Amino acid sequence: MSKILRQIDLQNVEIEDKFWSGRLETNINVTIPFEYKQCKRTGRLDALKLDWKEGGKNKPHIYWDSDTAKWIEAAAYSLVVKKDCSLERKVDGVIDLIASAQQSDGYLNSYFTTVAPQKRFKNLRDGHELYCAGHLIEAAVAYYNATGKDKFLNVMCRYADYLTEVFGSGRGQMKGYPGHQVIEMALVKLYKVTANGKYLQLAKFFVDQRGNSPVWFEQERLGGNFERFNSDKHYVEDFSYNQAHKPVRQQDKADGHAVRACYMYSGMADVAAETNDRDLIRVCRKIWDSITIARMYVTGGVGSAYYSERFSFDGDLPNETAYSETCASIALIFFAQRMFNIDKDSRYIDVLEKALYNTVCGSVSFDGMHFFYANPLEEYPPAREYRGKYENENHVQSVRQEWYDTACCPPNIARLLASLGNYVYAHSGKDIYVNLYIGSKADFEIGSTHISLHQKTNYPYEGKVVFNAKVSEPVKSTIAFRLPEWCPRATMKINAKSVNIKECTTKGYIRVSRLWQNNDKVELVFDMPVRKVYANSIVRQDAGRFAIQRGPLIYCIESVDNGKFLSNIAVDKNTKFTVANKRILGQAISVINFSGKRRIDSGKKLYVYDSIKEKKVCLRAIPFYLRANRGLAEMMVWLREC
Amino acid sequence: MSKILRQIDLQNVEIEDKFWSGRLETNINVTIPFEYKQCKRTGRLDALKLDWKEGGKNKPHIYWDSDTAKWIEAAAYSLVVKKDCSLERKVDGVIDLIASAQQSDGYLNSYFTTVAPQKRFKNLRDGHELYCAGHLIEAAVAYYNATGKDKFLNVMCRYADYLTEVFGSGRGQMKGYPGHQVIEMALVKLYKVTANGKYLQLAKFFVDQRGNSPVWFEQERLGGNFERFNSDKHYVEDFSYNQAHKPVRQQDKADGHAVRACYMYSGMADVAAETNDRDLIRVCRKIWDSITIARMYVTGGVGSAYYSERFSFDGDLPNETAYSETCASIALIFFAQRMFNIDKDSRYIDVLEKALYNTVCGSVSFDGMHFFYANPLEEYPPAREYRGKYENENHVQSVRQEWYDTACCPPNIARLLASLGNYVYAHSGKDIYVNLYIGSKADFEIGSTHISLHQKTNYPYEGKVVFNAKVSEPVKSTIAFRLPEWCPRATMKINAKSVNIKECTTKGYIRVSRLWQNNDKVELVFDMPVRKVYANSIVRQDAGRFAIQRGPLIYCIESVDNGKFLSNIAVDKNTKFTVANKRILGQAISVINFSGKRRIDSGKKLYVYDSIKEKKVCLRAIPFYLRANRGLAEMMVWLREC
Repeated sequence: MSKILRQIDLQNVEIEDKFWSGRLETNINVTIPFEYKQCKRTGRLDALKLDWKEGGKNKPHIYWDSDTAKWIEAAAYSLVVKKDCSLERKVDGVIDLIASAQQSDGYLNSYFTTVAPQKRFKNLRDGHELYCAGHLIEAAVAYYNATGKDKFLNVMCRYADYLTEVFGSGRGQMKGYPGHQVIEMALVKLYKVTANGKYLQLAKFFVDQRGNSPVWFEQERLGGNFERFNSDKHYVEDFSYNQAHKPVRQQDKADGHAVRACYMYSGMADVAAETNDRDLIRVCRKIWDSITIARMYVTGGVGSAYYSERFSFDGDLPNETAYSETCASIALIFFAQRMFNIDKDSRYIDVLEKALYNTVCGSVSFDGMHFFYANPLEEYPPAREYRGKYENENHVQSVRQEWYDTACCPPNIARLLASLGNYVYAHSGKDIYVNLYIGSKADFEIGSTHISLHQKTNYPYEGKVVFNAKVSEPVKSTIAFRLPEWCPRATMKINAKSVNIKECTTKGYIRVSRLWQNNDKVELVFDMPVRKVYANSIVRQDAGRFAIQRGPLIYCIESVDNGKFLSNIAVDKNTKFTVANKRILGQAISVINFSGKRRIDSGKKLYVYDSIKEKKVCLRAIPFYLRANRGLAEMMVWLREC
Repeated sequence: MSKILRQIDLQNVEIEDKFWSGRLETNINVTIPFEYKQCKRTGRLDALKLDWKEGGKNKPHIYWDSDTAKWIEAAAYSLVVKKDCSLERKVDGVIDLIASAQQSDGYLNSYFTTVAPQKRFKNLRDGHELYCAGHLIEAAVAYYNATGKDKFLNVMCRYADYLTEVFGSGRGQMKGYPGHQVIEMALVKLYKVTANGKYLQLAKFFVDQRGNSPVWFEQERLGGNFERFNSDKHYVEDFSYNQAHKPVRQQDKADGHAVRACYMYSGMADVAAETNDRDLIRVCRKIWDSITIARMYVTGGVGSAYYSERFSFDGDLPNETAYSETCASIALIFFAQRMFNIDKDSRYIDVLEKALYNTVCGSVSFDGMHFFYANPLEEYPPAREYRGKYENENHVQSVRQEWYDTACCPPNIARLLASLGNYVYAHSGKDIYVNLYIGSKADFEIGSTHISLHQKTNYPYEGKVVFNAKVSEPVKSTIAFRLPEWCPRATMKINAKSVNIKECTTKGYIRVSRLWQNNDKVELVFDMPVRKVYANSIVRQDAGRFAIQRGPLIYCIESVDNGKFLSNIAVDKNTKFTVANKRILGQAISVINFSGKRRIDSGKKLYVYDSIKEKKVCLRAIPFYLRANRGLAEMMVWLREC
């Protein structure tokens, strides 16, 4: 296998972008401090003092350490982007708490240590211990990379060392694996930063052990001290929920709980890349295809079923009842990036971009303090209210919420946004990949030569992107520019001279190989027409409907602009779409205007015969990520075509 | 209030009908014996021996007596229609068992007596004791009316007497009421047959006590010996589920569990009619409107939500996930008949007919041994399979099943069909109402004069209906013929002379007042074109769609006739429909042929841009009641219009 690409270090990318900079600043200045307060307020930090007693306030919960960990990870990335001594002190304080919570054998978990010490590793399926461990490890690596301080890293190495003793195929070792994956990715990160091969080995063990018969989750259920954590009322006795229904290498479709699944696939790709495991890469590709060919929303959302928050079946993509968890799209981004690093194919980044600009970008409010957990593609508030009241659908909300009892999404958004710089470029040897079109300055070393790329653009609202290269000396290198799948036609000029794009495009990248000179200028123009998107004929929920896309952005209509009862709106096949500028939430937004028909109310009869009446209406679509920012509203992505 | 109509005695109506006779014979010859065997096989009959011991086989269930009761009721009606000594002996045997299960104080319940004697009446909300009592009372009344034998009736009077002591507003009496209604209707039946006013009073007490503050269900939950029966996993802590969220007279919308609700509304109408309670009738009308204006499927199904099997909210009528329980439509038929008896308005019978010919008629197979519990309006087998496996939706099935653990529907269908003769006519004084167009002979007494009406028709497939009257002497009487709401134009001739229908139509009935002579002949012709039905604009799930109706029958398309992926089919606004004859299951069925478009597969891409291709296809619709009789198939009632 050819050399695996690496993401470049976060400190080598500086984002200066009309679309993103404001949001990233809000993430650092508002969201991260806000989430710290939420962790504190809810008892997540105090739980690490291990002084909770039965009957006491704020009983620790099995997930809590993972939320704290993700907050630290987000803070760590933000410290790379923007120094902040006060934040760093806060993090150090939390790390001191974490360190103080570590047991003499290395074990570290605020819930099990205080609430259920006898149950350590007795219910891997539901207990989330290895999940918490994984997030703590990821946070420790991020903080070490950000600050060079190794206290937290050492704590987590001790815990990881303990885990390598407990788990494994050796005599007396547990043959178990996490019920909620993430530790696979985390251990590979720990391996990369410590070069300690046993962490990689443990990650590989977790991957390869999963789903072997007899299934560990069945064995542990029959063992001593097993406790069912009934926190998930939708839990169904089924190993596919945890991707343990068969050995991982025999799995060929994304299945079960979507966040668990995509974290696992990311970890599999990591293990495969690090161990050069072609068989595992083949499995990863197959699973990737199963998602992107039949199980992914046009917004890059995955896990369509509310019940069990899982992948359901091919072509099943309900809109109003879509779950499409924020964390699942973040996990899909992780998986996409890893697969891109292996295959260097733009199709992975096309999906990453879709998930980023639509689901993830829309999952946090512009004020940085409200979050979507689930991201349905259709919103009818009376239905949401009904289901919230009578069907306990409390994760699915019509408007963004300040916090959730299960709070995985908010800190996950924060860490993803804080590390956005990691996703813009990739490089390896003499190759530089430009994956995302985000205004930025990035520094690369090709051998001993320094290349600095300055990217300027109004993407995603405009298709023009200009790069200026600075080189310490002329250098032979290939810069590969992603040709987005949504773009019907692109032009490129280098130093004002046209490039024949077709001739130099491979696997979705315009590969420009040349001796780069100082001040070389690359001008890319992506045609960005409004496009109608049709789902495959296997998606029954989107039959007769289309979505509006422009650039990477999926659009939606809201009742705020278009009146109530959006279901009564239909759009003629030949309707023309025009792009207009409008300020929404202080942002200059490209909205899309078009005409449609609206059913006229048919009075009080529930059913009428023969015909109904319609009238012509003017309609406006806004980007999906902007939805639900102007009060409670109906919303619809897939519009009826007539 | 003007005189309440009565249904005529079952023995005075003899059905001889092309559409119904075969099915009614199957009901008597196959379904009723089959259901007896199922009751026996599953332990429902043995449970009445009260000899079950902990650890024993076939542990009695809280519902079981109600299933046995409904079977007896069905058998009783069938004995009226067709003498059968062997069946009568079987029923007597079961009645002996029931009598032997009665406790010395009159109490009678196989579950509570054997399994949980300490819990008698401790959980009225979930325990189904008064529900079982209600069905047993209804069965006893039916059997007494059918055979004149009073053993069962006396047993149930003793139980009812006991109930009148236990429940009531007096000192020391329980202020409770059933968690699952039906006993209200039953007590009114018992009152009518015994003329004992205290049964009517108890029915009225149950109606008026419900929902008063503090809610009984809350009080009993805090009381001793309360046990939560978790048989319904979807149970939500909410009193609207049991229609106890507010006093009944303050309720203005059908709410909560649909079968409970419609049984209660029927009981309310009974109490209102018998006590001349205008306020309660006003409430009943309001609730009726709330159903028929906003909460009823075009098939006469009600209770759209699978979760809690309940009414959800106005305009919420999902098709594929429709619950639309068979029992709920039967209950709606009860409610409709009672409201018609009070208001003499055809709108009630229009709904009754809708529910009868579509939901109820389709809920049992032609072999009489397979039943639908839920009646969705759209079927996509992979979705059903998924939800059955991962979301425990085991009541909702793609094909009719032989039995269900919760077996309320099969015997309910049997008793409804066995008593079909009760729904064809109504009369009061000098008025005869013809409600259903079903080939039959019916006898009426107007004073001392005997009228015999002979109805001949090929309804619901043809709109012509001919009546021949035989009278013992010329008699002044009004015969009111229902003008079905689906009929755009009707003609009537009496003795070959045209009648001006418009002039003599009131509240949906063509009222023919005359001196009826022997051999008078009435010829009614209802135009029966194929009609497109559109749902009100509040029904978002049917937007852009239409249903096909002809006569009272709603049609559907199935993949058996039209190929898989029905969602890819759309029908042009101007499509012409033609009626054709086809034999299906040995029946001469009017199918409907028309042309449409079908989306051509778009290959392996999940999303494509700009346009898709369609081809012209020939389509065939069959009556909804005939669906799922030719193997596992996709099915769709609401067709996409383009």
